[in-house]
Amino acid sequence: MTHTTVPAYAAPSPKAPLERITVPRREPGEHDVLIEIKYAGICHSDLHTVRGEWGDDGVFPLVPGHEIAGVVAAVGSGVTRYAVGDRVGVGCFVDSCRTCENCLAGLQQYCTGELGSVGTYGATGRDGQVTHGGYSTHIVVDENYVLRIPGSIPLDAAAPLLCAGITLYSPLAHWKAGPGKKVAVVGLGGLGHMGVKIAHAMGAEVTVLSQSLRKKDDGLRLGATHFHATSDPATFEALAGTFDLIVNTVSADVDLGAYLGLLKTDGTLVQVGAPEQPLPVAPFALITQRRSFAGSMIGGIPETQEMLDFCGEHGLGADIELIRADQINEAYERVLASDVRYRFVIDAATI
Amino acid sequence: MTHTTVPAYAAPSPKAPLERITVPRREPGEHDVLIEIKYAGICHSDLHTVRGEWGDDGVFPLVPGHEIAGVVAAVGSGVTRYAVGDRVGVGCFVDSCRTCENCLAGLQQYCTGELGSVGTYGATGRDGQVTHGGYSTHIVVDENYVLRIPGSIPLDAAAPLLCAGITLYSPLAHWKAGPGKKVAVVGLGGLGHMGVKIAHAMGAEVTVLSQSLRKKDDGLRLGATHFHATSDPATFEALAGTFDLIVNTVSADVDLGAYLGLLKTDGTLVQVGAPEQPLPVAPFALITQRRSFAGSMIGGIPETQEMLDFCGEHGLGADIELIRADQINEAYERVLASDVRYRFVIDAATI
Repeated sequence: MTHTTVPAYAAPSPKAPLERITVPRREPGEHDVLIEIKYAGICHSDLHTVRGEWGDDGVFPLVPGHEIAGVVAAVGSGVTRYAVGDRVGVGCFVDSCRTCENCLAGLQQYCTGELGSVGTYGATGRDGQVTHGGYSTHIVVDENYVLRIPGSIPLDAAAPLLCAGITLYSPLAHWKAGPGKKVAVVGLGGLGHMGVKIAHAMGAEVTVLSQSLRKKDDGLRLGATHFHATSDPATFEALAGTFDLIVNTVSADVDLGAYLGLLKTDGTLVQVGAPEQPLPVAPFALITQRRSFAGSMIGGIPETQEMLDFCGEHGLGADIELIRADQINEAYERVLASDVRYRFVIDAATI
Repeated sequence: MTHTTVPAYAAPSPKAPLERITVPRREPGEHDVLIEIKYAGICHSDLHTVRGEWGDDGVFPLVPGHEIAGVVAAVGSGVTRYAVGDRVGVGCFVDSCRTCENCLAGLQQYCTGELGSVGTYGATGRDGQVTHGGYSTHIVVDENYVLRIPGSIPLDAAAPLLCAGITLYSPLAHWKAGPGKKVAVVGLGGLGHMGVKIAHAMGAEVTVLSQSLRKKDDGLRLGATHFHATSDPATFEALAGTFDLIVNTVSADVDLGAYLGLLKTDGTLVQVGAPEQPLPVAPFALITQRRSFAGSMIGGIPETQEMLDFCGEHGLGADIELIRADQINEAYERVLASDVRYRFVIDAATI
């Protein structure tokens, strides 16, 4: 297999600042698509991985980036779905076993094959090479793991949909957010702001539960009808038994019992952020109203396409702050300080 | 309102042995049914309440018993559903607000009225009187909170269905145990043995997860296809990703993460026993396979009737050990030692 090398931004070692390097990309095989990356979102997972906070061994130098939007630059001889010039995206994985029950059902994110789905960066692909992510000018991906981005979404605002968008869309769709449903989104960050937009577009009545009222105007503008501060204990009294669905985007430890109490009978609290420590759950809060505490992780290829089409129809993209590649390290600091409204997106032309 | 007094067994004070007393029962009102109690099951909740372990203030003397089977002895003038001589049962509650969304939906167990549903014992009824449970010869209950026991179930084996039976039937029905589904029941006690019988009758493939293999023969006889010891770590490796539904009847603290790992994608672990302490839940176990941790509590009146009819059709009753009233205290000790297969039932004729 032959390779070319392309520029990228990588962490040379755990916790080190990112710097410009070159990485190999394979020549497009029969079913591969060569994508010229236009934009790559910065996801909090990128930071976790670079900093080795998820207990990964990690493969360094590590090129993060799994919110990728670009244009098809070349296709393999067997590619049927995409042509040069198509607007496309790549999300959190670039392959999976394709044979397990979940892969066959289009739930590749839950692939139960021996190695699970192949992460867009820091994993080992079926070609035996380490995968490198989207902080780069080009990427080569099997067409079955490439998504089509509707023309109505600007590519820069589309990039974060590939992770933040689907991470919220999937649980909102699975637990049936829609007209007549009261949905709360906990945390108004990169994930949460997409949750508000999508849940609102689905027709649900949306409440933001944020630490303070600092982002209230934003929340209402994004589509929320209500906005409450979780630092105020009165919030938990006033909203007891209110919600059909709560999506918690906060990875920090939270008082789950308090949030479970905000659910109606048969309501579900879905965790999409992943705290490092186990969260204590008081079973009484679940038992006494048949509530559920669930988790959800990104989405499969068909659902990710469904999400992009949905966002295209409703004119939804992420609220972004476009940066140059040489601002990545500074942006990481600002992500850690929650100082971004609501997603940093790297302009790949500056790499 | 006039009253008669009837014999009963009561705990005179918290943690005290039960002794024979008399308690008042109201004369049947227009919509009331006077039931001659034939049998009353001993539920672990009775012990928790008598011992003040659930943080209840408790109202003493306390007459436990919410697994009641008997025969209608008299009916009020407005009673339409029952006639003298009918075989009837009473479960964990004898009234509810009747106006909240849940009551109107037949989910009286989750009544969100100001006081919630009215417990069969130790609560205050709408007549302002403290309720006394089934360790007694007679009880007076509004006909809307009385169940019909099919003729095919012996009354003594039917009594435990009113709590243990519905506690397992409700989550099994709600989370759709049935043909093609793999269901695990954790703990083979009073609750668990009904779970095995009911899940098997629903058509599910049933596995018992018990601390040891001591009750294996029983488990298989009751309807399980598989029986594994949770004390053996190999169980958790061998069964990883196996179950659609796990119902945990064990109230003691368990390693939830280990059980969550036994669920398939989209599987649910339902807690029906109520540990006193919060259980630590590692969100990764939920997130990585969209699993749920849920709770369920008994069942509403319509579903309890559905459960009794289902048990009638399938010839299901509890496996019981019939005792005299003067053996209650001894039976309590044996319940604490898990030395009962699988439910003590008091012969009310001996009260």
